[in-house]
Amino acid sequence: MSTEKVEIFDTTLRDGEQVPGCKLNTTQKLKIAKRLDELGVDVIEAGFPVSSPQDFQSVSEIAKLVKNATVCGLTRAVKNDIEVAAQALKHAKKPRIHTGIGTSESHIKYKFKSTPQEIIERAGEAVAYAKSFVDDVEFYAEDAGRTDNEFLATVCTEAVKAGATVLNIPDTTGYCLPEEYGKKIKYLKDNVVGIENVIISCHCHNDLGMATANSIAGITNGARQIECTINGIGERAGNTALEEIVMILRQHPALNLHTDIHSQLLYDTSKMVSQEMGMYVQPNKAIVGANAFAHSSGIHQDGVIKNRETYEIINPADVGVTESAIILTARSGRAALAHKAKKVGYNLTKLELDVVYKEFLHYADARKEVLDNDIHKIMEIYQSKSRVSA
Amino acid sequence: MSTEKVEIFDTTLRDGEQVPGCKLNTTQKLKIAKRLDELGVDVIEAGFPVSSPQDFQSVSEIAKLVKNATVCGLTRAVKNDIEVAAQALKHAKKPRIHTGIGTSESHIKYKFKSTPQEIIERAGEAVAYAKSFVDDVEFYAEDAGRTDNEFLATVCTEAVKAGATVLNIPDTTGYCLPEEYGKKIKYLKDNVVGIENVIISCHCHNDLGMATANSIAGITNGARQIECTINGIGERAGNTALEEIVMILRQHPALNLHTDIHSQLLYDTSKMVSQEMGMYVQPNKAIVGANAFAHSSGIHQDGVIKNRETYEIINPADVGVTESAIILTARSGRAALAHKAKKVGYNLTKLELDVVYKEFLHYADARKEVLDNDIHKIMEIYQSKSRVSA
Repeated sequence: MSTEKVEIFDTTLRDGEQVPGCKLNTTQKLKIAKRLDELGVDVIEAGFPVSSPQDFQSVSEIAKLVKNATVCGLTRAVKNDIEVAAQALKHAKKPRIHTGIGTSESHIKYKFKSTPQEIIERAGEAVAYAKSFVDDVEFYAEDAGRTDNEFLATVCTEAVKAGATVLNIPDTTGYCLPEEYGKKIKYLKDNVVGIENVIISCHCHNDLGMATANSIAGITNGARQIECTINGIGERAGNTALEEIVMILRQHPALNLHTDIHSQLLYDTSKMVSQEMGMYVQPNKAIVGANAFAHSSGIHQDGVIKNRETYEIINPADVGVTESAIILTARSGRAALAHKAKKVGYNLTKLELDVVYKEFLHYADARKEVLDNDIHKIMEIYQSKSRVSA
Repeated sequence: MSTEKVEIFDTTLRDGEQVPGCKLNTTQKLKIAKRLDELGVDVIEAGFPVSSPQDFQSVSEIAKLVKNATVCGLTRAVKNDIEVAAQALKHAKKPRIHTGIGTSESHIKYKFKSTPQEIIERAGEAVAYAKSFVDDVEFYAEDAGRTDNEFLATVCTEAVKAGATVLNIPDTTGYCLPEEYGKKIKYLKDNVVGIENVIISCHCHNDLGMATANSIAGITNGARQIECTINGIGERAGNTALEEIVMILRQHPALNLHTDIHSQLLYDTSKMVSQEMGMYVQPNKAIVGANAFAHSSGIHQDGVIKNRETYEIINPADVGVTESAIILTARSGRAALAHKAKKVGYNLTKLELDVVYKEFLHYADARKEVLDNDIHKIMEIYQSKSRVSA
């Protein structure tokens, strides 16, 4: 049975780049855009062209550079934004304008000081205006996560009527739980007129740690595009992490969904984005964290040495990590010590191991990690004591 | 309608501390244990007493120190482990022994080179032996996430029969998706004999970014304890993040579940654990990351200035953060600039703002962030130009 494709819409250069400390110059943006294209993302959201002269320039140069992916520019439902985005995207092989407006009660009332009817009209007008410049227009219903489903379906129907090719349903504040977000997507799939001709997109934020889970709930309920970033960077607690989505679909064939991402480039891309932005990735970050494939407790190390799959569900090589690390600490067991000792030249008998292990624990208790060089020191202590007792 | 309580089992000092680079000395462990007790966790897993002399000492001193929480020690299904743990927990007001064994095919075959029947027997024997030392015995079925549900229910029934008070169902490799993990918990709720007298516990790992979502699926299907760590640290990609669980239950009253955590201590506790372990928290970490409440894009800043709730679902004060940060970058809009300028002493008219904003964008495009001091510089440029043109 052939699997259906989920489009990967990368917004590292837009939602990611707008974050405190993450700003990139045009050269950096081009470097990352080139890599995203190699990685195999379907859409690169390159920036928000009207926001600043440099961002206009960046989007414009990315549009010229990118070979395979669609290049997308963000706008508000404002004529000038749309004109500027169209201008920036002029040389893209596949240009997309991403326009939209807030649809939740909070956004309509406090942000736009507007009415639901006016929002519907502005949505339709913005899409139609964008459509006068490009064929591919994505509509976002900002704060869709907190928008009443019936009203959301009405706005979306209007956007589809005006020519939208993609409907982005953002959980802008990261409030939804998976079941709720999944139901919202299903409701739209069932109630938006003309939905069969457009792609539903999930844009989830991670304020409650749910971005990835919500996106998965979205695609299992009919969405076919996920908006995400490398390392999950983005406004506040960030966006859905691209690397997590890719590996979930890969490791769960029962979902019958796939992406076109070349997963072996994930680790290196993560490092590139982290370095260019100066945004560190915590060691316990899923898939790309420094410890993602590191085993330290004795119980785990013993299992991994016997058979990798006892504790590892992903082959590190699949994401471009060269080997799963066995790191020695005071919580390591005899198996890990014997494994590491052998690597640095000591073939210990079971009896020797018992004695050396005691020295090792004593030594390790005073340290964070025991490195290869420390093993030589431990062996020296062991050997000098053996001589004394002999 | 009163809500049901979910017990918080903190394993920062065990599953967290066993991570490369996270090792703590006894003084540090005591400092964190004291804080966890103040935070209101129900159970503190203090360590794995048999693993090293220092860890034994740490567990033993934590047992003496902790006033409110249950203090728990980890063991394998091995007599000596259990005896050593019982000894370390001797002075705890509420001691718990956490014992168990791997139940998945992979663990039985490769790790234990054993048979399903033998695993059932060893499980029952370990629980019964632990029960001879303490009343409160938690049983873990390691790699339950990949264990056949029927066999898992059989092992759990045996553990309950032997006296287990809590059944821990770990997704040891972080492989499950929420629906699958939720169904597993429901299956056990429906099929384990005597389940009505014990608590089911979720212990989820984050290898695919699903730890929090899986834990939530667990409690919505009948589990009533979550094993988690501060900052989500733990083996490989870590464990469920305590702070995410607490805030999800708080922000989603429809779940009808609560914890007894004093959420105002979350941010400070996160910083303490990060500092003591030398494990940094990425800026985009949910709830406790440096950017979790920072707004930088113009669209968002404008919204937050008008009404905090347009983009914030959590009041930062609820987790101990003093205010949501408006950070100026080249993606900021006029509203944010006016807001910040006012804070440092400039009340700009709309016309002035238009001109200053242009200077600001020019200035900001060359920088990562625009600080308060930079605003004075921008105002100087603006004022000198005004003088020239006047």
